[in-house]
Amino acid sequence: MSNPVQIESVAAGRDVTPIEWGGGRVRLLDQSRLPREVSYVELASAEEVATAIREMRVRGAPAIGVTAAYGMALAAARLDSRPRTEADAALRDAAARLAAARPTAVNLRWAVERMLRAAEQSPPGSDLAARLLSEAAELHRETLDSDRRLSELGAALIPPGSALLTHCNTGALATGGYGTALGVLRRGWEDGRVGHVFATETRPWLQGARLTTWELGRLGVPYTLVVDSAAASLMAGGRVQCVITGADRIAANGDTANKIGTLSLAALAHHYGVPFYVAAPVSTIDLGAASGEDIPIEERPDFEVTHAGGAPIAPDGAPAWNPAFDVTPGGLIAAIITDCGVTRPPYSRTLAEVAGDG
Amino acid sequence: MSNPVQIESVAAGRDVTPIEWGGGRVRLLDQSRLPREVSYVELASAEEVATAIREMRVRGAPAIGVTAAYGMALAAARLDSRPRTEADAALRDAAARLAAARPTAVNLRWAVERMLRAAEQSPPGSDLAARLLSEAAELHRETLDSDRRLSELGAALIPPGSALLTHCNTGALATGGYGTALGVLRRGWEDGRVGHVFATETRPWLQGARLTTWELGRLGVPYTLVVDSAAASLMAGGRVQCVITGADRIAANGDTANKIGTLSLAALAHHYGVPFYVAAPVSTIDLGAASGEDIPIEERPDFEVTHAGGAPIAPDGAPAWNPAFDVTPGGLIAAIITDCGVTRPPYSRTLAEVAGDG
Repeated sequence: MSNPVQIESVAAGRDVTPIEWGGGRVRLLDQSRLPREVSYVELASAEEVATAIREMRVRGAPAIGVTAAYGMALAAARLDSRPRTEADAALRDAAARLAAARPTAVNLRWAVERMLRAAEQSPPGSDLAARLLSEAAELHRETLDSDRRLSELGAALIPPGSALLTHCNTGALATGGYGTALGVLRRGWEDGRVGHVFATETRPWLQGARLTTWELGRLGVPYTLVVDSAAASLMAGGRVQCVITGADRIAANGDTANKIGTLSLAALAHHYGVPFYVAAPVSTIDLGAASGEDIPIEERPDFEVTHAGGAPIAPDGAPAWNPAFDVTPGGLIAAIITDCGVTRPPYSRTLAEVAGDG
Repeated sequence: MSNPVQIESVAAGRDVTPIEWGGGRVRLLDQSRLPREVSYVELASAEEVATAIREMRVRGAPAIGVTAAYGMALAAARLDSRPRTEADAALRDAAARLAAARPTAVNLRWAVERMLRAAEQSPPGSDLAARLLSEAAELHRETLDSDRRLSELGAALIPPGSALLTHCNTGALATGGYGTALGVLRRGWEDGRVGHVFATETRPWLQGARLTTWELGRLGVPYTLVVDSAAASLMAGGRVQCVITGADRIAANGDTANKIGTLSLAALAHHYGVPFYVAAPVSTIDLGAASGEDIPIEERPDFEVTHAGGAPIAPDGAPAWNPAFDVTPGGLIAAIITDCGVTRPPYSRTLAEVAGDG
């Protein structure tokens, strides 16, 4: 790909704009460089968008969905006046490339399929580029609304003055909107329900140390950073009243794929009698996956484990296993908080109710 | 302190010599620089030894015990021909400084107390310096013997062909001898019982990524490095048959202080029905501590959490909580493997049998 334009800038306000459309390009806050550097990449093609997703310049299941939708709009903008059959083939090709960029999060596939449907439903001779850009912008707006709704529903579950533990990053950076689990914490802080947040650093990519602390700091929410393995001590000491995370894909039975380490927190919360919540939009629910066994788990390069902060931390050539996600059984999840309602076990019934077509 | 002499050297053989006495100094393999650099520090006074322990140039409960014993020998070498009462006071002062270097591991206190007893029992007019050096060397030799004994006992517990998960570093580097938990794995590998080792990276200080991988690689034991939070996925997938760690202090009821993250692994092993073992010499047992509540937990600087591999990973000034250890309840431990026998619950009886005076 051509090198995306990089624009140095320091975001000054409380709200960040992780994904933005302008001048025929999608502009992303480069999350791989935070918190050291607030810089943006501008992407001009679906191919560049797929690369940015693969390189995790944008990450977080809902945010990669929104970004991929704009990627489809970029693909449509290049169609010029090609015949419709050629145009459809080109869009399907772009959709396949985007969907393959990261296999676990279902929002990515959901977003490109929605864009393909919008193209199919456009009458012959209509302006496909304008139609897809409008659809992507609509999907982006819906994400913000959906985040706000689920954050309000989730915050209501938290006893006033609680300390919560969260994992990875699920804020505005992760969704392009307001946040999922971090949205619940943000709203809960505003409502006086959240007194303190413990953020796990989230090795290997350090989304907690780099991104969640950055967002919490900008929002003024009091927090403490801990290494992932310190969560058990916090729970054993009664210092955490709830654990809340996001999700990359939720199977029909409630089994939830999320950032590596989520399963560990859920099992520990179960051991210590601490409620474990998942917050995610309904677009994260994949009723086509009967259970966690049907969710593909992305394995990323050893490099991310053998290095930290860019520096090697292990002997040269040390073999590593680097699954990006794990699967938490639905049985360990007290509630799955969606924009269409708070679901409780048995998930095989309640998830179908919020996400089903019927 | 004066800058300790640093000698660059590449260790060529299979065995490492992490602690060595020679020319009136104690020479340490500098563990804070592994695996990037094999270098040594030479320490000429008890004060320098205390600093090296605090800075974690040497770490691992048994290894800091051995090093502190040599530190007492260095203190004795400086007494010249002072009157005995002055000499005793100087030694008690050195012992207090050494014991305070790190509060959790009891082997450190145990070693300096043993050296003080050896001094007290020396007849007036005898060569205290020679006596204490001989006692330190004897303690060092005993560590090697003890490691070998407990490694043999521990290896016998492992079903042939097992994959084991271990945390932090408990090899020759951690003991100055053969290793405790890693000694069991090493012996188990030689006996065909251990087929594979999963080593957790052990944030924040990365002893697993930096040191355990280095030792396993030199020993030729097949291993895979994982982030701490991936342990749950390994256990959920049935890929680990036992978990084994070392210990920094074991209370009379079996509650065990060990590297942060150990509690997490023990609770997960319990959840998944995987046996969780602790391997440690009897000098790690503190019958004076009734339970884990009596064990002081060292909290280390935020810096270690907000940085990784020397580079900042969090926003400037991000608050962190950095306990070096956690306490695993005895109830989660299937067996505590010591040089004096394998102990099983109820630990309040069995630990007193192996460690008691009576």
